[in-house]
Amino acid sequence: MTRHHAMVERDGVRDAVAVEEPLEIRVGGDPVAVTMRTPGHDEELALGFLYGERLIDRAWEVGLSEDLAANTVDVRGRLCRSLDRRRFYTTSSCGVCGKGAIEEVALGAPPAAPGPQIPRDVLADLPDRLSQPGFELTGGLHATGLFSADGDLLLVREDVGRHNAMDKVVGHALGAGWLPLHHHALCVSGRLAFELVQKAAVAGAPILVGVGAPTSLAVQLADELGMTLCGFARAGRLNVYTGAARVG
Amino acid sequence: MTRHHAMVERDGVRDAVAVEEPLEIRVGGDPVAVTMRTPGHDEELALGFLYGERLIDRAWEVGLSEDLAANTVDVRGRLCRSLDRRRFYTTSSCGVCGKGAIEEVALGAPPAAPGPQIPRDVLADLPDRLSQPGFELTGGLHATGLFSADGDLLLVREDVGRHNAMDKVVGHALGAGWLPLHHHALCVSGRLAFELVQKAAVAGAPILVGVGAPTSLAVQLADELGMTLCGFARAGRLNVYTGAARVG
Repeated sequence: MTRHHAMVERDGVRDAVAVEEPLEIRVGGDPVAVTMRTPGHDEELALGFLYGERLIDRAWEVGLSEDLAANTVDVRGRLCRSLDRRRFYTTSSCGVCGKGAIEEVALGAPPAAPGPQIPRDVLADLPDRLSQPGFELTGGLHATGLFSADGDLLLVREDVGRHNAMDKVVGHALGAGWLPLHHHALCVSGRLAFELVQKAAVAGAPILVGVGAPTSLAVQLADELGMTLCGFARAGRLNVYTGAARVG
Repeated sequence: MTRHHAMVERDGVRDAVAVEEPLEIRVGGDPVAVTMRTPGHDEELALGFLYGERLIDRAWEVGLSEDLAANTVDVRGRLCRSLDRRRFYTTSSCGVCGKGAIEEVALGAPPAAPGPQIPRDVLADLPDRLSQPGFELTGGLHATGLFSADGDLLLVREDVGRHNAMDKVVGHALGAGWLPLHHHALCVSGRLAFELVQKAAVAGAPILVGVGAPTSLAVQLADELGMTLCGFARAGRLNVYTGAARVG
């Protein structure tokens, strides 16, 4: 159940705000992370989070049990590697912050697949093709959309955390057997920081488009991996920072 | 030294992007957190981060050594409470995410001080009074500003992470002996999430204004603490969610 907005009283009127609540992600009963997220699609969030951390690579090898009243999701099953508690306590919805050693920021994402070529005007139009009912109500939600090479919207998720919105899309794609996303483009409603590029890369997407600005480290990582990174996608225009060969 | 932008090549032209680099915060030599931040004012960031986590309450009781080449800041000195490693590894630039138990999200911020009353039009104008040279160059930086009750800008910090910009302002205020900020207002360039309200509350600021939308938990915490929370401050208008008595 998605619950993206709540009503509050302000200036004597009732108004909608984006819902933010903590979700504790547990593995085998042990709490490993808490992320401030918008309730809904919490299993996708947990799956996408673990996939982005390169701890699982198949959805069917893990099981999830959810206790919504307690805002917890518990993941049980086979992990790709053992759970390093020290490392895991440091993992966050930011994707990178809180980690105990700078080396851990980079997860060794794979190089980008050749991927499709998509016309520039289609890429620039992706933000307008994102369906964002929660944002329209609240002005307070980020969105991530998964698009086909033809620019068709396949899936969109909204969340107060931009990393959560990406994790939910990746988690859904994992559960649906769509990974790796070698023939797709991802589009985010905000800025493009390092960890979003890394999450997209781990999910196999060769193209990432954002409405906002990229950071220096986002450009650097996309360049190293051979990904296409486009920012400031608005009003029919966009900037292409890396991987221009995929922009037709 | 602030280094808020870097030049990249895109679409055959040189363009400025916001610098994002990891900073490892150590306490007594032990790495406790890594935050993705914009270099500059790193000691302020470390101080503000520790203050926001309620681990220090006096700047002069700790010393900082910085190794910019290694992107580390090491804090030594007397902490208010012992360093719980498990807890600390979970702390992040998000202020809340990554924590190992939901209970740890709330830090027990103090109730708001009576504070000043500030005219509505002055509060609505605070975002326009924020000086954001880095944002103007890159479009990729958040800002936090500290304002007097007259609406005068006392300090502004920019960062790729909105939490870092707040931490830097609080860290500077701590070092300058300005805390608690009982007679000030804080203004942020983006949305108002739970952890920004909590950081402002821990620093003693009774008024927090944001350009963007508040979340449900931000409104709830501000209400519980008796803070004034204003969002969507743009073009001479703003929404007052809580603490309307301070809006003149």
